Amino acid sequence: MPATVSPPPPAAPASEFALIQRHFSRPCRHTALAGGDDAALLRPGPGIQLAVSADMLVAGTHFFADTDPTGLGWKTLAVNVSDLAAMAAQPRWAFLSLALPAADEHWIAAFAEGFYACAERHGVDLAGGDTTRGPLNLSVTLVGEVAPGRAVTRGGGQPGDDLWVSGQPGLAALGLAMLRGAFRPDAHGDACLAALHRPQPRLELGLALSGLATAMLDVSDGLIGDLGHILEQSRCGARIELAALPLAALTAAGADDALALRCLLRGGDDYELLFSAAAGHRAALTDLALRLHLPLHRIGQLTPGAGVLQLQHADGQLEPVSATGYDHFA
Amino acid sequence: MPATVSPPPPAAPASEFALIQRHFSRPCRHTALAGGDDAALLRPGPGIQLAVSADMLVAGTHFFADTDPTGLGWKTLAVNVSDLAAMAAQPRWAFLSLALPAADEHWIAAFAEGFYACAERHGVDLAGGDTTRGPLNLSVTLVGEVAPGRAVTRGGGQPGDDLWVSGQPGLAALGLAMLRGAFRPDAHGDACLAALHRPQPRLELGLALSGLATAMLDVSDGLIGDLGHILEQSRCGARIELAALPLAALTAAGADDALALRCLLRGGDDYELLFSAAAGHRAALTDLALRLHLPLHRIGQLTPGAGVLQLQHADGQLEPVSATGYDHFA
Repeated sequence: MPATVSPPPPAAPASEFALIQRHFSRPCRHTALAGGDDAALLRPGPGIQLAVSADMLVAGTHFFADTDPTGLGWKTLAVNVSDLAAMAAQPRWAFLSLALPAADEHWIAAFAEGFYACAERHGVDLAGGDTTRGPLNLSVTLVGEVAPGRAVTRGGGQPGDDLWVSGQPGLAALGLAMLRGAFRPDAHGDACLAALHRPQPRLELGLALSGLATAMLDVSDGLIGDLGHILEQSRCGARIELAALPLAALTAAGADDALALRCLLRGGDDYELLFSAAAGHRAALTDLALRLHLPLHRIGQLTPGAGVLQLQHADGQLEPVSATGYDHFA
Repeated sequence: MPATVSPPPPAAPASEFALIQRHFSRPCRHTALAGGDDAALLRPGPGIQLAVSADMLVAGTHFFADTDPTGLGWKTLAVNVSDLAAMAAQPRWAFLSLALPAADEHWIAAFAEGFYACAERHGVDLAGGDTTRGPLNLSVTLVGEVAPGRAVTRGGGQPGDDLWVSGQPGLAALGLAMLRGAFRPDAHGDACLAALHRPQPRLELGLALSGLATAMLDVSDGLIGDLGHILEQSRCGARIELAALPLAALTAAGADDALALRCLLRGGDDYELLFSAAAGHRAALTDLALRLHLPLHRIGQLTPGAGVLQLQHADGQLEPVSATGYDHFA
């Protein structure tokens, strides 16, 4: 699920999600895994398992109405590819339902360009969908394949597992701060905006982590907030080592230490993978990072205390933190 | 795709659909049938074929903002069940993405009630989805199963095949005319509104027609307009016999002959099945109608002239008609 770009509206959205959870959680009869993870798992036949994600992006909530349509086309599919990557599933078939306020050929052509660029990059067919007139709304359902037993859910983490994150979390949040005029970069401004507008789903990594990662998700609402989902479903806690966080690229862009830390831990929209793995896999993961030319940062450990999240300072001191979601610097 | 309740907006929507077709029709590599039918067909493994439909319903375009949420919940899923029925596929897994303007528990609970009623009636799991804040938008992707070779597309009709329609097309259009104040029923007003608000997808019929029907779709935009899709994809024409049309129920409700004919041929939203079948299957289809307690009307024939649609009057005279979509009495 993508993060939102605007601050929460006056009526608390938490209650909306609670209401949906309350009224839309009746049991499933022929679904291997429904709801509550990056994708649902379906078993249509022996030896076949499908992973399916659904994401809806709304103008004014998830993106600014004047966002470049090519980037938006890319991102609309990319957030779903990222969900399947986080399940270690290969995306195959996309269904795109569009509500458009007007027939604007320039906009539609540019949006299609970005959408297909992401589809071709990740081996996805646009297999169907729907078009209608209405306030701008982009709804994608993405169906992918993962062999039975090979999916990585959020629920398999064990105390003692290392905690890893890919790439450079926090860049997209700096990009968003730039757009809002809250941050002026010294350098790397383009990289910050690219992270926000053209997130790169970590598909090769996600696929390679099947059998290595014990729990995994993609960071869309902020590293701390999303880690909370792993802790909840794996019924454990976590300790994050501040000294291990990849803050250098953020401070090199001009962020002060506080902003860099906030972007890295609370900023969403980077779509990096956050995962746990047994300590015995450290060498394999280092090899994998080299092979994929993608940094993997070992930032902490899962711990026994269910739901307890702590930051470990350089002097060893432990600071408890709340694993609630993004705040978007409201 | 559901019909729209409002007249087409000033900018012609046809051009919007043409633009979408122009920019979103790149070839697929691992899809058995993409776009242009009631559902896409996917083959994730040997012996396995999935049918997938996607429909988006927007307030103000597809339904009135004050529509009863229970009926709306039913209909949101029902239009997709109807798409799979028209492929002779068994619906299994639904993905519901909702944009909601506010957290209104009464509304959400009532919507869920209707959605699950339709899901339970048709053996569907709600397997996933997304919720977000925004103008009311209901987007469903429905995944179903159909054995390879058993799906019924729009493209298999042959000249000489009989043309059939199920149930009572036109009732929903009368219901819509009632809501608009354009029609006051003498009788059966409840049935007209029920047809509009709680359409019954003809799933048992659709499943039973695999091997009998040569081409099939569900009537959402009007019988004549949707028949045009069969003619286009089957590359043939059709002759409809006016005397064979089931007009009696519409005139019994109080519609004059002209309104009854218009509702039956041009009104959408009934979600009856329109299909072609070889003349040799007449007895089998009559038996099927008895077994399902569902009238099946043999209303004409497919003919050789590609795209040519004619109405045959009682005196044998043939009137050419245009196979364009609904007009909603604008």
